[in-house]
Amino acid sequence: MTMTVWTYDWVPGAERGPRGFVRDLRLRWALEEAGLDYRVRTTPFEQKTSAHLQKQPFAQIPYLEDGAITIFESGACLLHIAKKSEKLMPRDPAGEADTLQWVIAALNSLEMVSVPWWFLKISGDEHEGLTGWLRQRLDHLSAVLAEREWIAASRFTAADILLADVLRVPKVRAFAESPVIEAYIERACARPAFQKAFADQVAHFVAAENERHASLALRKRE
Amino acid sequence: MTMTVWTYDWVPGAERGPRGFVRDLRLRWALEEAGLDYRVRTTPFEQKTSAHLQKQPFAQIPYLEDGAITIFESGACLLHIAKKSEKLMPRDPAGEADTLQWVIAALNSLEMVSVPWWFLKISGDEHEGLTGWLRQRLDHLSAVLAEREWIAASRFTAADILLADVLRVPKVRAFAESPVIEAYIERACARPAFQKAFADQVAHFVAAENERHASLALRKRE
Repeated sequence: MTMTVWTYDWVPGAERGPRGFVRDLRLRWALEEAGLDYRVRTTPFEQKTSAHLQKQPFAQIPYLEDGAITIFESGACLLHIAKKSEKLMPRDPAGEADTLQWVIAALNSLEMVSVPWWFLKISGDEHEGLTGWLRQRLDHLSAVLAEREWIAASRFTAADILLADVLRVPKVRAFAESPVIEAYIERACARPAFQKAFADQVAHFVAAENERHASLALRKRE
Repeated sequence: MTMTVWTYDWVPGAERGPRGFVRDLRLRWALEEAGLDYRVRTTPFEQKTSAHLQKQPFAQIPYLEDGAITIFESGACLLHIAKKSEKLMPRDPAGEADTLQWVIAALNSLEMVSVPWWFLKISGDEHEGLTGWLRQRLDHLSAVLAEREWIAASRFTAADILLADVLRVPKVRAFAESPVIEAYIERACARPAFQKAFADQVAHFVAAENERHASLALRKRE
């Protein structure tokens, strides 16, 4: 059955905005890796609907529809998709546990520090303790990645999608200053499935921006 | 097979420290709910060993041993334990997806904001944007909890263990100022499995503290 990835109809920030970094990319990437059928549908960014809130109570995207099931949180969506394809998670108990621990580590040990650090940074602030904490986490991670091509189970898994996506955020990537982490990000982003997902997301939001401009121009003329 | 929960041998902070809030509690609680056999072993808090780093690359606890498998990250451990007991996660696909999305939401939508907010708070700082973000997340959550006894699948699940544990952190709990969230925390913490896990953790760290004092006293006398 074709799954549906829900994302926003448009996002702000033409030059340095979130295009190419909106989290539906994690789902697109996973579905491309798994070779599963999917389509993309949109919900308004500017005026969040009650239909949106019913599917995603924090009014975020993405969420995934799979038949009668709707599931939100990119990490949960990836674990759901991973049940359908061994390409995203090995089927032996040890490989599964290793993938699972790194899926959660990407979200709860790395992103839990990198996102608030980034959030303060873009509002022009910095907190010394938070910065030190992020440095420490990246150093620990760097030590692990120095000896591995992929983070879990000696192969590419869903954990790499989350981890690479957390790390490739430009400010975080620059802050890391780690050749090991940089090489890992490059390795992950060189995968055809990432390239396709990234190009598709950018094309989606560029088209939305063009449509918006055309519609504004039309309104001005009227 | 008996699983092993690894935690610290001791934690600082007699009066307002982390006793009762160390994350091995999440695993103890889940194992008590599931009625599964487990034992608790410790690793040094003060001088992290290389054996510890091999099991938990960020030098944190808890981690779980289950036969030949070791798994870190409390969220991953809970999902691992949930595979062994329906008490922690329903077995129908919709109930499973619902539990999964709320497990990740507790970690990546709530805790990703509450922990850095708390981290700044205990260092005497506050960031307006971060505070507003936490308020917004708690308001969204409160709206959901207002209509539910438990967060997912119309019953108690592993998601409640994580969500309640994120919310019951004293500063977060006080900040929430939500009767709905307060009632939810009370409901969760009234469960016998929580009570047992909490009492066992406190007893473990109180015993460690007493032992430490006795050993210091002994050294002084020598």
